[in-house]
Amino acid sequence: MNADSYDAMPPAGATAGEVLTRYLHERAAGFLRGLSLRGENEAEADALLRGSARRIGGALHTFGPLTDPAWAEPLRAELAWLSATLGREPQHAGRLARLLEALRRLSVAAPEGQEPVLAGGTGGAAPPAVPAPASGGPLALGAARAGALLERQLTLARTRAHSASLQAMGSSRFHALADAIAVLVSEVPLTPAAAQPAQAVLPQLAGQASQRLADAAAALPLGRAAHPYNADAVQAALGAELTADLQDAPWHQVRILLRLTRYAAEVTRAEGDTAERQRLADAARLLERHREAAESAAAVAAAARTPRIAPATAYALGVLHADQRHEVEAARFAFSRLWQPAVPGARRE
Amino acid sequence: MNADSYDAMPPAGATAGEVLTRYLHERAAGFLRGLSLRGENEAEADALLRGSARRIGGALHTFGPLTDPAWAEPLRAELAWLSATLGREPQHAGRLARLLEALRRLSVAAPEGQEPVLAGGTGGAAPPAVPAPASGGPLALGAARAGALLERQLTLARTRAHSASLQAMGSSRFHALADAIAVLVSEVPLTPAAAQPAQAVLPQLAGQASQRLADAAAALPLGRAAHPYNADAVQAALGAELTADLQDAPWHQVRILLRLTRYAAEVTRAEGDTAERQRLADAARLLERHREAAESAAAVAAAARTPRIAPATAYALGVLHADQRHEVEAARFAFSRLWQPAVPGARRE
Ligand SMILES: [Cu+2]
Ligand SMILES: [Cu+2]
Ligand SMILES: [Cu+2]
Ligand SMILES: [Cu+2]
Repeated sequence: MNADSYDAMPPAGATAGEVLTRYLHERAAGFLRGLSLRGENEAEADALLRGSARRIGGALHTFGPLTDPAWAEPLRAELAWLSATLGREPQHAGRLARLLEALRRLSVAAPEGQEPVLAGGTGGAAPPAVPAPASGGPLALGAARAGALLERQLTLARTRAHSASLQAMGSSRFHALADAIAVLVSEVPLTPAAAQPAQAVLPQLAGQASQRLADAAAALPLGRAAHPYNADAVQAALGAELTADLQDAPWHQVRILLRLTRYAAEVTRAEGDTAERQRLADAARLLERHREAAESAAAVAAAARTPRIAPATAYALGVLHADQRHEVEAARFAFSRLWQPAVPGARRE
Repeated sequence: MNADSYDAMPPAGATAGEVLTRYLHERAAGFLRGLSLRGENEAEADALLRGSARRIGGALHTFGPLTDPAWAEPLRAELAWLSATLGREPQHAGRLARLLEALRRLSVAAPEGQEPVLAGGTGGAAPPAVPAPASGGPLALGAARAGALLERQLTLARTRAHSASLQAMGSSRFHALADAIAVLVSEVPLTPAAAQPAQAVLPQLAGQASQRLADAAAALPLGRAAHPYNADAVQAALGAELTADLQDAPWHQVRILLRLTRYAAEVTRAEGDTAERQRLADAARLLERHREAAESAAAVAAAARTPRIAPATAYALGVLHADQRHEVEAARFAFSRLWQPAVPGARRE
């Protein structure tokens, strides 16, 4: 993410517009810094560009009543486009690493009698410290082939995403966006509401973002997800394509609302209590894991549709798909326990 | 199981040999009743034969010091043979039903927004009340084909097991065993130790059986299994054949020791407290579920080795295999929580 800290205190008694403008200036400066860094370190530059774009877009969304919508709405759309375009390459890379690691884990035996150390308390699967090599057999061969197939497909997707990024960065569309960001460093088109004191306006708008998050999270099947091994997420593994999407979408939505809430807190500098900040950060990490597992499962299903693959390869992909849906379920479980730690009866059952 | 209740109270002050003999008589009578029932209701008769054979063998094992080993050991071996032979047909039938139900569950979408009711507290997956039909797609087709393949293979295995049962029941080997059981109704070859008072001997031997169970259960990775989504059981899904066997064997062993403990309690009529009896019954059910899931997963892996299956079929079998290993993990989780409900730190993590 964006490592920039926004730590200069705003003047006491500032207007809402002043505080928001100050935040947007900082983030726009980060964006332009990312742009100039691109020749040196592309990955770092892109992460800075994406983080800045997401934060500017998020602030414009949450504090929408303070800026001219005729200016803000199209800018937000362009920022979302850029963020999505630049995000694809690292996503494909991360997905490939995740799936190859899962295949490795599914193919090795933990040394007998050893209890692997658990990776944190989030229910994640810790790879065994000293993996024994998988001995042969058709299933192990299938795993190797499945790994090679995924590597081929995801590397191709990554290369294409890289080309698309380069093309986007050279486009007139990006040029116009960079111009708009440069303007944002100097001036932000504010509404009359922005003239009110920051304390009178910003906490209220940030509170609305928190409320949207709370409402969306409350609508999730948290009670159900807090029961381990409910097998809900894996249920979609052989169903119609749409099944997983329908099931996952509300969780993805909460992930986005959580991000907006965290960005809003950057603007208002609402410190909250440390425990609450940590809880939001942990929740964000779990929903990120949920998304990664869900998208990795989808990539596996796509690979399984490759014509003329060997049955052993397809079998390994099936195991891997179910494993990733299992990870989806594990992330939901951990999120449910984190979000509502006092689910009645959920602990013991 | 054997529905016979062994409820006649033994005379107060009976010897150990008298109490054991009385129990063996009852079970031998059940065995002979099963034999005569076979013409009418084969399934019920076989269940009675198996339940009686397991109980006689179990009592001879736990209370071994009370009977002549030269007589008891070969008899136990023959009882184990019969029990295993008669058990195969219902096992194949149960496995097929379990796998078809799992395939159905993996292929349908739960109606959106509905939270299916959890099936008890054992972490089991409750099928949705009103399954929506799976719409097409290559994966759904693969699931249908995988179901047909499993149906073919397990029905064939079932038919073969049935023939083997019939052949066994007509064999001179079975004839000799039935003769031995008939003798057991009239006389049991006891050792001098059997002349001691029942209270001085039986609780001690039954206690040794409980201790063997407690030791074996304590050697299981219960702390690890009590962490949901540790992904241990699924780890073996693509590994060498031996991986799952090595991992599952200690759990299967505890299942057998648990059964011996419960049978020993039938002999001693140790009522225990009701809560403890219920706990052992629940534990037995969970380990039975563990075994069924593990053996079902193995049957799926075997089906996946069928030559010339379509990739979509293999893919569905891979998903199903992982699902059943997931069920193995869920059973271990539930057993761990039941067996040691106060695992430190296991609740919250
Ligand atoms: Cu919006
Ligand atoms: Cu490049
Ligand atoms: Cu023995
Ligand atoms: Cu028959």
